[in-house]
Amino acid sequence: MSSNNNHLNHPVNQDPTVIFMPSGRRGRVTPGQSVLTAARQMGVEIESICGGRLTCGKCKVQVEAGAFPKHGIISNPSHLSPPGEEEQRMLKRLHSEDCRLSCAAYVYGDLLVTVPEESRAHKQIIRKSATERVIEIKPAIRKLYVEVDQAELGEHRGDWGRLQSALADQWQLQHLRLDLPVLRRLQPMLRKCNWSVTVTLWHDQEVIDVQPGYQEGIYGLAVDIGSTTVAGFLCDLRTGDILATESFMNPQVTYGEDLMSRISYAMMNTDGLEKMHTAIIDTLNRLAASVARQANIQARDIHEAVMVGNTTMMHILLGINPIELGGAPFALANRDAMDIKARELNLRLHPGAYVHVLPAEAGHVGADNVAVLIAEQPYQQDENVLVVDVGTNAEIVLGNRHWLYSASSPTGPAFEGAQITYGVRAAPGAIERVRIDPDTKIARFRVIGDERWSNEWQRGPQATPETQPRHLAIGICGSGIIEAVAEMFLAGILWPDGRFNQRCDSDRLVWEERKGSYILATAEESATGAPILVTQDDVRNIQLAKAALYAGAKLLMNRAGLTSVDRILLAGAFGSYIDPKYAMILGLIPDCALENVYPVGNAAGDGARIALLNRDKRIEAQQIARWTRYIETAIDPDFQTEFVNAIHLPHRSDTFPHLADILPASPSDDDDAGEHGRRRRRSRTRMVKL
Amino acid sequence: MSSNNNHLNHPVNQDPTVIFMPSGRRGRVTPGQSVLTAARQMGVEIESICGGRLTCGKCKVQVEAGAFPKHGIISNPSHLSPPGEEEQRMLKRLHSEDCRLSCAAYVYGDLLVTVPEESRAHKQIIRKSATERVIEIKPAIRKLYVEVDQAELGEHRGDWGRLQSALADQWQLQHLRLDLPVLRRLQPMLRKCNWSVTVTLWHDQEVIDVQPGYQEGIYGLAVDIGSTTVAGFLCDLRTGDILATESFMNPQVTYGEDLMSRISYAMMNTDGLEKMHTAIIDTLNRLAASVARQANIQARDIHEAVMVGNTTMMHILLGINPIELGGAPFALANRDAMDIKARELNLRLHPGAYVHVLPAEAGHVGADNVAVLIAEQPYQQDENVLVVDVGTNAEIVLGNRHWLYSASSPTGPAFEGAQITYGVRAAPGAIERVRIDPDTKIARFRVIGDERWSNEWQRGPQATPETQPRHLAIGICGSGIIEAVAEMFLAGILWPDGRFNQRCDSDRLVWEERKGSYILATAEESATGAPILVTQDDVRNIQLAKAALYAGAKLLMNRAGLTSVDRILLAGAFGSYIDPKYAMILGLIPDCALENVYPVGNAAGDGARIALLNRDKRIEAQQIARWTRYIETAIDPDFQTEFVNAIHLPHRSDTFPHLADILPASPSDDDDAGEHGRRRRRSRTRMVKL
Repeated sequence: MSSNNNHLNHPVNQDPTVIFMPSGRRGRVTPGQSVLTAARQMGVEIESICGGRLTCGKCKVQVEAGAFPKHGIISNPSHLSPPGEEEQRMLKRLHSEDCRLSCAAYVYGDLLVTVPEESRAHKQIIRKSATERVIEIKPAIRKLYVEVDQAELGEHRGDWGRLQSALADQWQLQHLRLDLPVLRRLQPMLRKCNWSVTVTLWHDQEVIDVQPGYQEGIYGLAVDIGSTTVAGFLCDLRTGDILATESFMNPQVTYGEDLMSRISYAMMNTDGLEKMHTAIIDTLNRLAASVARQANIQARDIHEAVMVGNTTMMHILLGINPIELGGAPFALANRDAMDIKARELNLRLHPGAYVHVLPAEAGHVGADNVAVLIAEQPYQQDENVLVVDVGTNAEIVLGNRHWLYSASSPTGPAFEGAQITYGVRAAPGAIERVRIDPDTKIARFRVIGDERWSNEWQRGPQATPETQPRHLAIGICGSGIIEAVAEMFLAGILWPDGRFNQRCDSDRLVWEERKGSYILATAEESATGAPILVTQDDVRNIQLAKAALYAGAKLLMNRAGLTSVDRILLAGAFGSYIDPKYAMILGLIPDCALENVYPVGNAAGDGARIALLNRDKRIEAQQIARWTRYIETAIDPDFQTEFVNAIHLPHRSDTFPHLADILPASPSDDDDAGEHGRRRRRSRTRMVKL
Repeated sequence: MSSNNNHLNHPVNQDPTVIFMPSGRRGRVTPGQSVLTAARQMGVEIESICGGRLTCGKCKVQVEAGAFPKHGIISNPSHLSPPGEEEQRMLKRLHSEDCRLSCAAYVYGDLLVTVPEESRAHKQIIRKSATERVIEIKPAIRKLYVEVDQAELGEHRGDWGRLQSALADQWQLQHLRLDLPVLRRLQPMLRKCNWSVTVTLWHDQEVIDVQPGYQEGIYGLAVDIGSTTVAGFLCDLRTGDILATESFMNPQVTYGEDLMSRISYAMMNTDGLEKMHTAIIDTLNRLAASVARQANIQARDIHEAVMVGNTTMMHILLGINPIELGGAPFALANRDAMDIKARELNLRLHPGAYVHVLPAEAGHVGADNVAVLIAEQPYQQDENVLVVDVGTNAEIVLGNRHWLYSASSPTGPAFEGAQITYGVRAAPGAIERVRIDPDTKIARFRVIGDERWSNEWQRGPQATPETQPRHLAIGICGSGIIEAVAEMFLAGILWPDGRFNQRCDSDRLVWEERKGSYILATAEESATGAPILVTQDDVRNIQLAKAALYAGAKLLMNRAGLTSVDRILLAGAFGSYIDPKYAMILGLIPDCALENVYPVGNAAGDGARIALLNRDKRIEAQQIARWTRYIETAIDPDFQTEFVNAIHLPHRSDTFPHLADILPASPSDDDDAGEHGRRRRRSRTRMVKL
């Protein structure tokens, strides 16, 4: 496609940058490469069946032309080759005139490319899996079979009146109201099914559905709306069973990766809220349809949903502008639980269905944290429990049956693999476990989708289908970067202050302008054919994130007068996949006996499910949300101090006594102690500026 | 326009029939006449400014081509001349391509022509005027000014929580809920108006609006949805004043003039309910906009509406198929009062506004009758009160503080001027008062819009602007036909059984195939230039209607063991304009001292307004609706007997002692007594078949 070279208007001395959304993967490409090739080089998997013959149309992407200062990108239409006639025909046939086929679009300048879900080659692995818990089944909705008196001349109760009489006589229910759409269907329904119906009741207050004859199945949907992932659990409200689970990317990622950028988007664009609201509603509708399909029911068979999420997600879900959450005093529009008709939100569940939204604690601790609390119930413990939920923001709760403190820490998305040079989300091929030989400084790793360590891989002529790597490395996910940095520290590659150790002699270390990088995976081990590195900036970003998390926990401990905690619960996808030992080596969490550090899975999703299955838990949630004392990290001077102190990688056995057995008696540790003390003091101001 | 003669395909021996909707006026026209000319001949007033020059476009009408068996019409497109280029251009400019200009469309066959509201020359006179009553002002909604605590760091109630605190502290209100659209606007509102707002509360339960600063005006809308007319009253809910009234034709008239034809329409057409529901909602929206405009407010300043109407109207309003009301056992979908968000009905009032619908008593006695009851309160009287509300159906209530019976009688639309050969709705030029000289048999009459009797009119050269008739007669309205038939009876033109008296010698009587007609207005007195007649069929239709009404009242009196009542209240537009004396002469109502027969105006509208202004009255309405005992006329053998007995025009002083002073000692009365007794017995079966 040399004919397209006339579109090249990029500075010749610099290769164009391409960023793929929603993964956030970015990289430089040689001008004239196809978008599909560029994606493959960066480990962004785009489906393609016809291999560039313009016949399958599976590889379509959206390419945006504009200024994206946050991403350092200024792109314009000429950065991409224009579509040819054949491509135009195909896109028209796909009703996707706003898209391009990535196999036929050639890069000539900086680009922001969005890969729509249907074009992604591999589904995201569902990391948020619901754990099994004992929950008393006492849902807010129930189904009752009733036999109604026939209409007769001279009797004027009306069909709804007769149904009310039947519910009073047969089920001792009084003072019910009826949803208008049900009233509209009631008369033909009663006559068609010989005056026997199954009624769906919400809180024994409102008839939200009437079905012919005897009907049994009753279904609810619990949803955890994360900034990045939306996870849904379809539950049988009679048995409490999870019938189906599904998770989708939060489509709002397009409008900003973290909460602050979404709030900014709502602030800067008059239709910003509307766009993000519509996007999440669409996704929830797809999610409901998907779980229903899996369970062989219809989305309209779902009669209630419980939704949780951070405060920004909840505001946007309800169509409330989140801008007040973007600045002090971080005022919520509403703190309390709400029940809203699904149809008021354009959610396509049953037309009479309600959505219950759990309450929030404060501007930065939302319904998802309340859900974690009702799932883990620290307020019923004698011990001091620390609950840490790491997402784009980290929510931290500390307490016991007598008191509960909560805080929110701006960890940023580093733990999710974003802001990491070779960071990827958890997907097959992502490096999730790392071990570095302290002598050779050579790493072995494990990728998602393969149980074996990379040093057990066989390649070349002697490899069999069994010994060949199942996935080459595509990048580093959250738990991988934690282990990588911790192992680099343990192997002496990093100083406790996070700098690369220039005295360290290994060809795995690369130096550029006096900044070190570490080759975690070699070109041969990498799917892109280029090595996968951990850079100095990556280490810095991890340090900032872990310091924020640690400082938050420390703040609450100080408030409570504790120097250690009895138990640590790690909630969320990140908490499930991180190795507690490495979390402690890196100093994400305070000192604790390792056997008392547990991953608790998607506790927010569990809490949503618990509130769905048991209406009393909603009252408990409301009480706990108000009872928990929120500590504002933003205005607490303690937080800044703790943050600065926590920037370093931990190595002092007086702060982390439980690490004493784990940490090697590294000579560099002692050697550097004196120098390090000075460096820490010097670094205090410098680090805070980062 | 003789060039259009090729479209003539009508049997030559019969002039085509044209029916104009919604008035129902019909007549035969000479082929080749314009629709506008035909309309004028029949007293249908269509606006026209340019006089057929195709420049004003005011005279547009919709002409339907199809079969209308109910109207005896089978029309097809060739019954009308096709539009010329000039007309097409004009219609395109008016965005009315589905219309014709009546000045340029020529009749060549049977037609059904609908005159849209904007093309009518004279607005309908608002007959339903609200009477002034003393009502305690205690509306369901109220406005409260509150000053809310500012959001502060470290305080997490949220804006709605702070507003709740303010309402609790300043107004002792607890356990409030908030409408979602209000929550969406709450945060910017509080900040813009310095944390002082006016809250609109519904039943002290729900915050349905928040406005900046101090706001005073609070408005509600009371609506009486009649089968023919929709009347609305915009009320100031602080003072109780009526700020504006408006009435529109019920657009459902297009789908059937009476209730049964609308129920049939819903039964026969899958989208019938949808069409009629949408039509009434559109009209209510126009009504709300109109009253708001008159009062210099916006429709969105209306925070509540109370609506009443017969059961069919209420079903259609709520989007419930009324087919069950079309046959025994006449089962209501819902008898009780309901509160529904206006937006659920697509009503464009305030987004948080509620619509309160009053309860019904039985399948044929609806919220409009309950409204009449709470307006007139017969249940607080010691005397026996008969309340008669004549519309297309008549609702009849009899009782006192100890008991209340109600019934519904199928009077049909004759009293409204329909089914009467020269019948018109109440409009300027309609004959409303009639006197016939017993000797000359010549009538004088009064038309709406002119205080003088027709014999005071001056025409020709000696007439001055003062003495000239203001409107020539266009037809006979409901009160006019009552008086005409009664006066014809009193003048000896009619026998008591309703036949024309062949012995009566007057050139005002016309005979055709032994059927008589009476010339009420001469060609000179008529706007169409043709005389206005009362035919034998008209007299029969009035007899049937009045017999149904009387039989209903008699049925209730029999049930209560009464032979007379103490007081009669005539509700509705018809009741307001009918002369009680003639109602009794004709035998519409049972015997009663004339000074105890009162018109009470639009009591249904008054009742709606009372329920709007005073929420306690809604509880009273609910109680009364259940307390009143409904007598089913359709299955009561008594009703048939009373109906047959009531077919005759009353003349027996033993049945109507109060008529003794009024009725002349007509010689024909005595002469005919013996013969009449036989005739009555003979007529019993014949009349029932009618």
